[in-house]
Formats: sequence, C-alpha cells, structure tokens
Amino acid sequence: MSSNLNWLDEEPRQPDQDAAAAARARQAQLTKPPGALGDLETLAITLAGWQGRVPRLERVHISVFAADHGVTAEGVSAFPAAVTAQMIGNFARGGAAINVLARELNATLEVINLGTIGQAGIAGVHDAALGPGSANFVNGPAMTEAQLGGALAAGRHSVERALAGGAQLYIGGDMGIGNTTAAAALACALLSAKPELLAGPGTGLDERGVARKAAVIRRALEKHSGHLRTARDALQRLGGFEIAALVGAYVRCAQRGLPALIDGFICGCAALAASRILPGAQTWWLFAHRSKEPGHTAILSALEARPLLDLGMRLGEGSGAAVAVPLLRLACQLHAGMATFAEAGVAGKR
Amino acid sequence: MSSNLNWLDEEPRQPDQDAAAAARARQAQLTKPPGALGDLETLAITLAGWQGRVPRLERVHISVFAADHGVTAEGVSAFPAAVTAQMIGNFARGGAAINVLARELNATLEVINLGTIGQAGIAGVHDAALGPGSANFVNGPAMTEAQLGGALAAGRHSVERALAGGAQLYIGGDMGIGNTTAAAALACALLSAKPELLAGPGTGLDERGVARKAAVIRRALEKHSGHLRTARDALQRLGGFEIAALVGAYVRCAQRGLPALIDGFICGCAALAASRILPGAQTWWLFAHRSKEPGHTAILSALEARPLLDLGMRLGEGSGAAVAVPLLRLACQLHAGMATFAEAGVAGKR
Repeated sequence: MSSNLNWLDEEPRQPDQDAAAAARARQAQLTKPPGALGDLETLAITLAGWQGRVPRLERVHISVFAADHGVTAEGVSAFPAAVTAQMIGNFARGGAAINVLARELNATLEVINLGTIGQAGIAGVHDAALGPGSANFVNGPAMTEAQLGGALAAGRHSVERALAGGAQLYIGGDMGIGNTTAAAALACALLSAKPELLAGPGTGLDERGVARKAAVIRRALEKHSGHLRTARDALQRLGGFEIAALVGAYVRCAQRGLPALIDGFICGCAALAASRILPGAQTWWLFAHRSKEPGHTAILSALEARPLLDLGMRLGEGSGAAVAVPLLRLACQLHAGMATFAEAGVAGKR
Repeated sequence: MSSNLNWLDEEPRQPDQDAAAAARARQAQLTKPPGALGDLETLAITLAGWQGRVPRLERVHISVFAADHGVTAEGVSAFPAAVTAQMIGNFARGGAAINVLARELNATLEVINLGTIGQAGIAGVHDAALGPGSANFVNGPAMTEAQLGGALAAGRHSVERALAGGAQLYIGGDMGIGNTTAAAALACALLSAKPELLAGPGTGLDERGVARKAAVIRRALEKHSGHLRTARDALQRLGGFEIAALVGAYVRCAQRGLPALIDGFICGCAALAASRILPGAQTWWLFAHRSKEPGHTAILSALEARPLLDLGMRLGEGSGAAVAVPLLRLACQLHAGMATFAEAGVAGKR
C-alpha cells in the first residue's frame, strides 16, 4: 500500500466521558419521568461526550461527493449515466433536495466532483476529478491505487474544511448513477454476502433489473475473487470514487473527533468499509435513517446501528441525514433549556 | 345525551382532491427518482389536500390540557398527584419540555387547566376547571355529563382559538398524573381489550405496579359493565377531563379542516374515541410517533395509523408531536423548493 494512505492508521479520538456523565446526571434531574424523552436523551448525552461540554448544534457541514461508475455500461441503473453530471449542475444552481434541506437547516453545503463522464468544471463545485468515473469493475479494478488515495484524501480534506468552518456535525452525501451497484458489490465483499441480499432497485429498477444487477455483482465478485482480503482492496476493486471519499471522510471524522451523521445505503456501505479500515471509528457516528433500499438493513445490522428515522427515503445526496438534523438540535435544546425538578418545585418519582 | 353535545354530530370537512392531485403531479416532476423522498412526499401531498394549495407550515398551535384523576387514589402512578398542578406551574414558567419545543418551533403554546387538586388559577394558564379532577372511576363515573360536555367544549374552543390565530397545524398535549390508567381503561372499553394489553408503566411503574394498574382497570370495567356501549359513555365513565378535551379538539379539527398532529398514548386513546364519535374524523389527523408505552401499539393498529417517529418517547405534553413538526416543514419546503427535471435540464427515468 502506498505511503499516501498512512494517515488512515491514525487512531480515533476518545469522547469525553466526564462530559457525558454530567449530561446523564442532568437528564435525570429535568422535569420529566426518567427516560421519557427516549432517544432524545441518549442523543444529548452522546453529543455531550463528543463535544466535551453541554451540547449545542448550530453549525452543520454537508459535503456531497459525486462521481460516475463504469459499471453503468452493464445496464444496472434506471437512469442514464449523464444524470450524474446533470445533477451536479442542479446542485450548483440550488435545485436539488439537499440544497433545499441545507438552506432550511442553515447548513454549509459543498459539492465535490470526483469525476464524471464528459463534463468539465462547474462554478460552485469543487473539482477533484480523478478520471471520467471509475472503471467497469466487471472487467478489472474500479480504480487504481492512486485514484483510491485521491478519493480518500478528498473525503479527508472535506472534514478538514468542515472543522475550519467550525462545524459541529458532518454529513456526507453521494450522487452517482450506478452507485448502489458499486456499494452493494463492496458490501458483498465485506460481509461475504450473496448479491441477492444487497442488490436492490436503486433509483427504480424493476424485478428483472434487480436480478440483472445481482448477476453483474456476482460476475464482479468472481472476477476479483482472492483479491478482496482487506477493506482497502475491496474498496479499490469494487467501490467508486464518491464511496471512497465518504470512507475517507468518516475515518477522518473519527480521527478528528467530528461527529458524523450517516445517511442511507451508499453512506452506510462506506461507513461499513470505514469501520473495517479504522476499528473504533463508529464511536463518532450516528445513523440517520433506514433507507427503503432493502440491502440497507443488512448494512445496519452489520454495524449494530439503530437509525433515528424510517421514512422510506432512498434518495442519497445526504438527504436522509439532513432530515434528521432537527432531532439532534431539539435534543440539545431540551437538554439545555428544560427546568430541573428543584428549579421548578416539582416532586420527583416516589 | 344533553343538547350541548349536538355539535359533535357535525360532519368532517373533505380535503381538496384537486390540490392533492396537483401536488402528486409536481412530486413526480421534481429532480429525484419517483418516490425517493418516501413519507416526505406523501406528507406534502396530504398537506396540499388539507390546505387546498401548495402546502406551507409556518404557524403551529399547541394546546396542553391538564387535569387530575380520582383513580390516583388506587396507587396507579409512580408520581404523586400533586405533580399535575406543579407541572402546570412549570408550563407557566416555561420550564417543561413542551415549552422548549414550542420556542424552538416558533409555535403558539397554551395551557388549559381543566381541574386539579388544590391549586387555583396560575397566571398564563387558561382556567377551565370542571372540578378538582375527575372522580375515581372504580367507584362510579369519572365525570358527570355536564363535566363531559365542558371538557369536550374546552377542546373545541382551543381549536377555534388556533384557527383565529391562523394556525396551519394543531397539536394537543396532555398532563395529568394517573392519565395512562384512564386512557387505558377507555381504550379497553373501546376495543373490548383486556387490561393487560393496555396497562403499561406510564411515568415509571415497576412490574408489580403495572399489574396493580391492570387490576384497577379490570375492577372499573366490571363496575361499568353494560354502560359502555357508546364512545361517549366510555369517555364519561372511564376518561379524564384532559382526555375528553383532546377528543373534543380532534373532532373539531376534522369539522373545521384544521390538520391535527396526534402525540402518543394518551392522545392516541383520545383520537380512538374521537374516531368512534365522529367517523371520518381521522382524515384530518397525522400520527407523530410510536410511544414507548406498550399499549400504544394496539391503539395505532386500531386506528390503522403509521406514526412518523419511533424514538422511545413517553412524556406526553404533546412533546412527541412537536418533535415531528420539522419533518412536516421540511416536506413542505422540499415540495415547493426543489427544481423540476425540466427546470434543471436533468434527464428522467428511462
């Protein structure tokens, strides 16, 4: 492995146990039956440990990574590959779902183009192109080792930018026609799972399309058999540029102690790879929602993750994570703003 | 039944099918795979039908109804009955969970005292006292017919105030030590269910406490056997003042076409009674969350309701409904703010 990946070995930070304990003690004194705010209590306590203080969540950073996938040549998507670049233009003009959500949440949004078919720089989009999309992994590795390093670094750099902007929460998003195929193939390798478990409709395949997608993944797994021992190998051979960037971002979040809110299927597969590359990284992640993409359940199970929302979303772009942000904010506000039993003169449990 | 309840027979309004159809057509043109926003799409379409236009959700009204329950004499709660009035004071001073949530949501919050033990008017609280709490329904009806009429009217009046203030969404909340016992007893009567299915820990009973609560409900059901034929009868004999007020509010929301976002177990039982009193009223309701109170699942099933959130909350006060408001707002904002495929120059599904 080339030396430019050495940063991946840096240990995750440790949350502040004292701040978490103080938050837990405060929750027990607030004017409500113990535990009655459910997950909002545990969120406040978790965020307190991450931030080392009474938790607050004003500044949210969203990085959307976009790239094309050579495997679309196999007919694995309901949309043409040209849509990736068209959607980058839509992001730049503010018309996509994640633009609307970022505006409403007052979040910082950046779009990073890691390489698409036939479209050069777009104003307002970070150009980090590693090539015109990944290679078709049915025929060979999805990317070179240099491309893998570049994509992982693009994710790392986005986390550094988020920290420089004072972000208290990091959201990664994905855009890339064909990327549920790449993510499913990667997850099959990581979990030693059958393609049928992970291949789903994506943007809208019918039953026959899903079967074709599973067959494509099976061919790829056979092609790369014996060369998928490490998560890095699987990512290079079966992943995609934006998936690798998300892996790099999630690893860096854990190394720098920036909480990450993980979106749906693509991000979940990236998180799974990141958890294999940097054990313990998951300490810094929350899972926003259960995607409608059926394979997501296996990913969440493998990560022992219980997502906050289950709204049947399957859009990507970080949209499911963005939708969960108000829950985290309300958890912080309840924690800080409620009166204690003593302050309110309310009797406790007998 | 006395004439002052005749208003309950007024028919529910009908949503605007044309506005809903227009919203459905717009959703299909937005730059995302069809259906990819999941429940956020159906929420926008539903809200469009309710509002008769492109949906917006700025003004939210929250009414919290508080009352004491004579059945607390049977030792059915983990907290002393005095906490009801103490919590009314906490609401008035802004220290409770619902106060924090209302502030963050920029929602109007009002508290209506329907009758508590030994506490007179509190500044900032609507005084609509019908007595010092309901009677112990193990020995007789929880309330008189006049009290039932007064409580239902208190709910109706809160909806009229919400409409006068331009509210686009109504949230009812509850506060009343002992009210999970009353709500469970009411639901047992409405569903012909065993007390063991509906009695739960409430604010924090242990296993023995839950068994005692179920036994109290069983005694009450035997006591009132043969007098629980209608939902109004069951509400008068087994309900509570704040539960009846919520029933009146939910009925009135449907009659006036004001969407109601239903909170947890207490509100769910009130909604169940309201759906029996005014068939079709449910057309105007959304269910915010699945409470941790185990009996809530049976209530949701009976109402064929699929709640938006499942965060293990069990606080009441309308808090679970308030936490769901950002989802509705984001659904509206995505609906109005996203670009269409044509506007963005993005290719559709092939």
